[in-house]
Amino acid sequence: MTAGQPLRTEPAAQSPRVNHSTPPAALQADIVPSYPPPESDGDESWVWSQIKAEARRDADAEPALASFLYATVLSHPSLDRSLAFHLANKLWSSTLLPTLLYDLFVATLAAHPSVRAAAAADLVAARSRDPACAGFAHCLLNYKGFLAVQAHRIAHVLWAQSRRALALALQSRVAEVFAVDIHPAATVGKGILLDHATGVVIGETAVVGNNVSILHHVTLGGTGKAVGDRHPKLGDGVLIGAGATILGNVRIGAGAKVGAGSVVLIDVPPRSTAVGNPARLIGGKKGEDVMPGESMDHTSFIQQWSDYII
Amino acid sequence: MTAGQPLRTEPAAQSPRVNHSTPPAALQADIVPSYPPPESDGDESWVWSQIKAEARRDADAEPALASFLYATVLSHPSLDRSLAFHLANKLWSSTLLPTLLYDLFVATLAAHPSVRAAAAADLVAARSRDPACAGFAHCLLNYKGFLAVQAHRIAHVLWAQSRRALALALQSRVAEVFAVDIHPAATVGKGILLDHATGVVIGETAVVGNNVSILHHVTLGGTGKAVGDRHPKLGDGVLIGAGATILGNVRIGAGAKVGAGSVVLIDVPPRSTAVGNPARLIGGKKGEDVMPGESMDHTSFIQQWSDYII
Amino acid sequence: MTAGQPLRTEPAAQSPRVNHSTPPAALQADIVPSYPPPESDGDESWVWSQIKAEARRDADAEPALASFLYATVLSHPSLDRSLAFHLANKLWSSTLLPTLLYDLFVATLAAHPSVRAAAAADLVAARSRDPACAGFAHCLLNYKGFLAVQAHRIAHVLWAQSRRALALALQSRVAEVFAVDIHPAATVGKGILLDHATGVVIGETAVVGNNVSILHHVTLGGTGKAVGDRHPKLGDGVLIGAGATILGNVRIGAGAKVGAGSVVLIDVPPRSTAVGNPARLIGGKKGEDVMPGESMDHTSFIQQWSDYII
Amino acid sequence: MTAGQPLRTEPAAQSPRVNHSTPPAALQADIVPSYPPPESDGDESWVWSQIKAEARRDADAEPALASFLYATVLSHPSLDRSLAFHLANKLWSSTLLPTLLYDLFVATLAAHPSVRAAAAADLVAARSRDPACAGFAHCLLNYKGFLAVQAHRIAHVLWAQSRRALALALQSRVAEVFAVDIHPAATVGKGILLDHATGVVIGETAVVGNNVSILHHVTLGGTGKAVGDRHPKLGDGVLIGAGATILGNVRIGAGAKVGAGSVVLIDVPPRSTAVGNPARLIGGKKGEDVMPGESMDHTSFIQQWSDYII
Amino acid sequence: MTAGQPLRTEPAAQSPRVNHSTPPAALQADIVPSYPPPESDGDESWVWSQIKAEARRDADAEPALASFLYATVLSHPSLDRSLAFHLANKLWSSTLLPTLLYDLFVATLAAHPSVRAAAAADLVAARSRDPACAGFAHCLLNYKGFLAVQAHRIAHVLWAQSRRALALALQSRVAEVFAVDIHPAATVGKGILLDHATGVVIGETAVVGNNVSILHHVTLGGTGKAVGDRHPKLGDGVLIGAGATILGNVRIGAGAKVGAGSVVLIDVPPRSTAVGNPARLIGGKKGEDVMPGESMDHTSFIQQWSDYII
Amino acid sequence: MTAGQPLRTEPAAQSPRVNHSTPPAALQADIVPSYPPPESDGDESWVWSQIKAEARRDADAEPALASFLYATVLSHPSLDRSLAFHLANKLWSSTLLPTLLYDLFVATLAAHPSVRAAAAADLVAARSRDPACAGFAHCLLNYKGFLAVQAHRIAHVLWAQSRRALALALQSRVAEVFAVDIHPAATVGKGILLDHATGVVIGETAVVGNNVSILHHVTLGGTGKAVGDRHPKLGDGVLIGAGATILGNVRIGAGAKVGAGSVVLIDVPPRSTAVGNPARLIGGKKGEDVMPGESMDHTSFIQQWSDYII
Repeated sequence: MTAGQPLRTEPAAQSPRVNHSTPPAALQADIVPSYPPPESDGDESWVWSQIKAEARRDADAEPALASFLYATVLSHPSLDRSLAFHLANKLWSSTLLPTLLYDLFVATLAAHPSVRAAAAADLVAARSRDPACAGFAHCLLNYKGFLAVQAHRIAHVLWAQSRRALALALQSRVAEVFAVDIHPAATVGKGILLDHATGVVIGETAVVGNNVSILHHVTLGGTGKAVGDRHPKLGDGVLIGAGATILGNVRIGAGAKVGAGSVVLIDVPPRSTAVGNPARLIGGKKGEDVMPGESMDHTSFIQQWSDYII
Repeated sequence: MTAGQPLRTEPAAQSPRVNHSTPPAALQADIVPSYPPPESDGDESWVWSQIKAEARRDADAEPALASFLYATVLSHPSLDRSLAFHLANKLWSSTLLPTLLYDLFVATLAAHPSVRAAAAADLVAARSRDPACAGFAHCLLNYKGFLAVQAHRIAHVLWAQSRRALALALQSRVAEVFAVDIHPAATVGKGILLDHATGVVIGETAVVGNNVSILHHVTLGGTGKAVGDRHPKLGDGVLIGAGATILGNVRIGAGAKVGAGSVVLIDVPPRSTAVGNPARLIGGKKGEDVMPGESMDHTSFIQQWSDYII
Repeated sequence: MTAGQPLRTEPAAQSPRVNHSTPPAALQADIVPSYPPPESDGDESWVWSQIKAEARRDADAEPALASFLYATVLSHPSLDRSLAFHLANKLWSSTLLPTLLYDLFVATLAAHPSVRAAAAADLVAARSRDPACAGFAHCLLNYKGFLAVQAHRIAHVLWAQSRRALALALQSRVAEVFAVDIHPAATVGKGILLDHATGVVIGETAVVGNNVSILHHVTLGGTGKAVGDRHPKLGDGVLIGAGATILGNVRIGAGAKVGAGSVVLIDVPPRSTAVGNPARLIGGKKGEDVMPGESMDHTSFIQQWSDYII
Repeated sequence: MTAGQPLRTEPAAQSPRVNHSTPPAALQADIVPSYPPPESDGDESWVWSQIKAEARRDADAEPALASFLYATVLSHPSLDRSLAFHLANKLWSSTLLPTLLYDLFVATLAAHPSVRAAAAADLVAARSRDPACAGFAHCLLNYKGFLAVQAHRIAHVLWAQSRRALALALQSRVAEVFAVDIHPAATVGKGILLDHATGVVIGETAVVGNNVSILHHVTLGGTGKAVGDRHPKLGDGVLIGAGATILGNVRIGAGAKVGAGSVVLIDVPPRSTAVGNPARLIGGKKGEDVMPGESMDHTSFIQQWSDYII
Repeated sequence: MTAGQPLRTEPAAQSPRVNHSTPPAALQADIVPSYPPPESDGDESWVWSQIKAEARRDADAEPALASFLYATVLSHPSLDRSLAFHLANKLWSSTLLPTLLYDLFVATLAAHPSVRAAAAADLVAARSRDPACAGFAHCLLNYKGFLAVQAHRIAHVLWAQSRRALALALQSRVAEVFAVDIHPAATVGKGILLDHATGVVIGETAVVGNNVSILHHVTLGGTGKAVGDRHPKLGDGVLIGAGATILGNVRIGAGAKVGAGSVVLIDVPPRSTAVGNPARLIGGKKGEDVMPGESMDHTSFIQQWSDYII
Repeated sequence: MTAGQPLRTEPAAQSPRVNHSTPPAALQADIVPSYPPPESDGDESWVWSQIKAEARRDADAEPALASFLYATVLSHPSLDRSLAFHLANKLWSSTLLPTLLYDLFVATLAAHPSVRAAAAADLVAARSRDPACAGFAHCLLNYKGFLAVQAHRIAHVLWAQSRRALALALQSRVAEVFAVDIHPAATVGKGILLDHATGVVIGETAVVGNNVSILHHVTLGGTGKAVGDRHPKLGDGVLIGAGATILGNVRIGAGAKVGAGSVVLIDVPPRSTAVGNPARLIGGKKGEDVMPGESMDHTSFIQQWSDYII
């Protein structure tokens, strides 16, 4: 896993406070995540074949873990079945039986290919960005941030279907089991990495773009100045450091980053960086080569600074 | 749920650092919470009838959740029975059986009407302050902050009865299951909202007044300069933003607020606001109309700024 | 338990930013923890006899807890058996059976006396540093920070044996159950106190010396500027306040302390203090009598400021 | 425990087949069990004090069992609480939670002193009739026949309250867990010993008098010749050997016995014995001294032949 | 439930011992069960609608059972889903997770309409033959004989698919949980009533026709004189009384009955009755009106004597 | 599995009732089982290697069962570890934790090689006598009779160590989970097959020789004519048919057999057969070649008639 975010930057002399009433046009576009993303069933299959291979290798090497690996991975025909099984066995309680949850997860994943594709994308994200990630299977089985996001996506589908009581019950179990609290109404893109994940809180009207990395203890909350649409909007390729608190309907532009421990109440332009409590902007590179126009660039961009690693 | 706390205030020009050796007399009074509060059995019944109605509506609309709703709400004759059942099924472990916990919770709630009344008041608080709260039943069943506070109140009763080992075991289970760590000796008022709640830590000699709202990751800790009475005292109607750390036997006056991510080591006068790391005071309104003298005003006061919402 | 860290210091006028390219020679030595420590079987036995006595007293006084105390403590012949049982019953899941974990823990503790000795040293540390600690048994049974560290030590042994998949699975369960995320490769000394512990994250190449106290929400993470050896190194006797974030391969010298909520990206010399976001150094005492050369002094040094207590 | 029933009797020369249309007047009376019996609270208390003493002795001698004994016996204030706890922890399932069952059992036992008294009488019966019974606690904790009968009595109360679905669900759990199938409508006296108990089946309109001993695999069933009142009626002090099958609305007179493996389709007069497949009567002693007119005699009479023992 | 079988017949004077080498031609035909039966999806739907109505009525009348009824019946869209859920929650163990079993049961029932239809037929059989049956839902939820037969049918499908290890594991769980031991290779018809069911054993090459009723403790076993096809063959409409033991590759003709406690080692012709140990034939009605040629008649025939009831 | 026992014998004309006061000298010797048997560690290893091979084959062929097979067999280093794990996961309850049982079983099996050897001998017995036995692993994992006997042997060791409360608690769990009730004081030889096993009851002073096969529903009980030594003694190589009831301190000579459903109250000489209710002797072969003097012959003798098979 990874933690923190680079802050050893030179102080940004100009550190411009963004004018909230007139956000830059460019920002407007880049915060709209292209979710649900077009599915790439091939990727899903490929990731699944990798997971099986890793699990088989580990089961052979470690008899004590073989039962776990067969139960969670090797006995399943597909990633979504494995995921449904694993999540159900994590999130059940005395009053929410595993069979009920499994049924719900299987049905939702079967009906929503984009949710399955996003799961695969998240696995690829973790694998490529986090040097401590020992493999796809490691992430699928052990990353509570990954699991929390998948459960959120299912809750999000339920919310959209007006099955709100069930969506909220699922949110609650995720908050208890993984200590990650994402409102079912929040929109979350694909290629997401919640690293370590403990204590992450994401509010009802928050939007998280694609290829975003969020460390633990991060809050995307409300400020109290507004009702309705009141939570942060994160563009694609954003990186939020550990313990950062972002409050209000502010926009964190594509490719921006927020330093660990920062308290952000203002918009952060694309490709710029905000640090401190309260946060100030410390510049950022605005060149054409840095401002990626395609999701693929976003990913490579993330990888560029994702050598911040645990 | 809600998150964060308003920080878009103008810088408080005077920002007075309170003199610790001579706290204002007014502060002395307002930090003494009127706990246990006079019971209003009518409110308890009314809240319970609302919960039943909500649960019945949800059970009808969502068959997959009906079993859960009948088990936790609809099969019970009263709020305290429902709460005892739900808490026991959350907090049991292999070595602390649900029947043991249920027995303990039922007996404690039956013997202490003020604990029951405080639970009802907490539900009203969540319902009225948190726009993301979908109803009383939603809070009762899904808010881990609510459940952690109720379990704390039971542990507090046990502590007062010198059943300390049991109180500490209960604290430990709450810390594991809800990631909320409240020492059983701490005094907590009624009308409390622990929003999101993950990571909240409240020390042994802390006092929390009535109608207080505390966001996640908040610490009411010690400074190490003292033993004995060494933790913060929060007056009525206080609001503490996400991630704030308040250390030492300091007084946060009635109606004061502390910004998200602040580190507070000083007294905060009533109706004033402290922000930053380290925190500084940024003013507050002192008018008669703003300084409420009754608990009812405190509640409305909270509601005034509780438009900080997730 | 304890929380926070003293920050009421005078601003350190000189606040020297340490030159990273030439760390002081003294620092080099004191960050190498003398782990695994020489075992003192006598201490282990003595602590165990204390635990039994406390558990017996509590079982007599509190029948409702007697079953729990017999199951976890009084039916076991030794501390390591009790610990293996308790941990297995905490960390099992539907897919990792308690018998499997118990077997693993018993075998590992039996084969590694230094792990057992470190557990005893941790209990002594909690008992002596934390005024809220009601006894050794209280810590053994109820402190999730203590339990998380013990599970980490077992995972660390597995990691060293190249049983990495199992070590990572164990890390994952600890992260879920205790909300403490310690990479199995991290090196952790003895006499460790993780107080409250929720949200603690310790990265793969981090080193934690002996007699270190770390409060909740603390991150020892990476900055992204480096791969390989990229996490903090804490010397003996270090104290890290609640919510502090320390990023990168920086050295926190022996006897140094980091204030609550600080974000530390620089080395902190021995016996000095760093506070703020970003953190600055605010001095420290360099006298012979303050700079302890033996672990015993380190402990007393910790105790000096560990009157920061919940 | 005990098993079987004496069959080494001399062949009964006359072996009279009872005339079903004109049962003897004496029989009519003695098959009416005096249930519910007058309570003897003193006995209940005395038995409970014995159980506590035995459990304490065993807990001291056997640490591995101490947790179990504290949980089931030593932490409870009374026999009915202990029984409710123990039964709930035996009979719960994924869909019938232990807290629900415990609540039901506690309430029923509290409201029905005769059910509590009958439990105490059953314990005395097992203790006095079964040489393999190691004590009251042994029977309370380990005899599935005893536990099945207590659960039946609770189901019987529910049935009488027209809570039939719940009574049948309880019957079903008892049939699964203890392999004892007693219809909730069946009437069962006190001082009952179901020895070994596996496979016992007792039909809806069956009546079992006081001080009856029934071995395993015994059926009190219907013949198919009748609907309505169609099952056997056992007088006080009856003994039924292992594997005996008694079918139809036949009367087994007070103090009668039925041999192991017998198939009984006819009335059996008081104090007589029936053996074989199909069963024939093999006499019995009719003297005044043998035909007891009081329940106390019935008990001693049972004890007379209850030297049939495992 | 029902128990036993009528034995108050006049002794059959001729009691002919059937010649094993030349079984009657008529017998040959009628022992071939017409399984799998043609599906009547209408019946399945109708039974399911009845079950839902009963469960709804009971849930309304009995809040304590409502959660159970919603979980097992009212939250499911069809009988097979409800059955899969209920069986999985009965048969899981620490090492066979409920999600795995549920998955297996759902898939098998979905792929095999005849297994679903047979379940519906069994429910109708219990409802119509057993006066103690309080309704279809009562049987579905509470009759362990019904549940054991459904699990057997699934195991039988697995066996036929050469998934023998899984089929045997399922048999084993059924034998433990319901005390009913049916070899997965045994062929069992539809419209089956296993009343009370405890202790029923059915061997590998046994065949049970349609509309058969078998009481508890019945064995369809081998004699040791043969390998290969070595177990009893029961024709349609057969009734076997409690505790009867039928050994060897004998044929129990259509509409025959075997008395309770009988030991049968010989063929029993259609419509005749065998009783005793060893069993002898006691006649039977051979008229055209009695020898039914259609399954419907078989059912009515069963009902004729099925007034043997608990 | 197998069931029943051959009864198609010619009626024994003389059917001699054995004189109880003067049992034949030969009988005296052959009822003394040579238990504990000399260990053959080689056999144990060989059986274990077979089990591993079978489990590996099944895990490869059946992914759904692989997790189960790894957990119970393939992750363990030896038969006794596998058995301890499997038994603990079968016999645990809410109040007897699996870790406690596992600990107890591992320790007992480690300390008593004869118990381990007897387990291996039982597996060989099932494999060789029961044509329905699909392999050693099938028996180890799925035969509740096998598991009940192993648990009994452990309880027997505890009884001999005067740990009677624990032994009786274990007996009770076995009686509930497997419906097999063996008093811990009973002496049971090796090479035992309890086929199907439901309902088997074996009394306190019973002795079961080596290479004995007992079908389900068999009782070795007391008659009530005696206290003290009051239960049956079974010689080596005895076969008891399904549902047989043997009562009193009678001797069933080596190589004798008892028919299904028989009720035996008399001694049965070696190599003879008893059938019926009440049982009569129906001869037997007395030739030198038939009366085996070595255990190996006993085994082959058993195999001779063990072609009685389910």
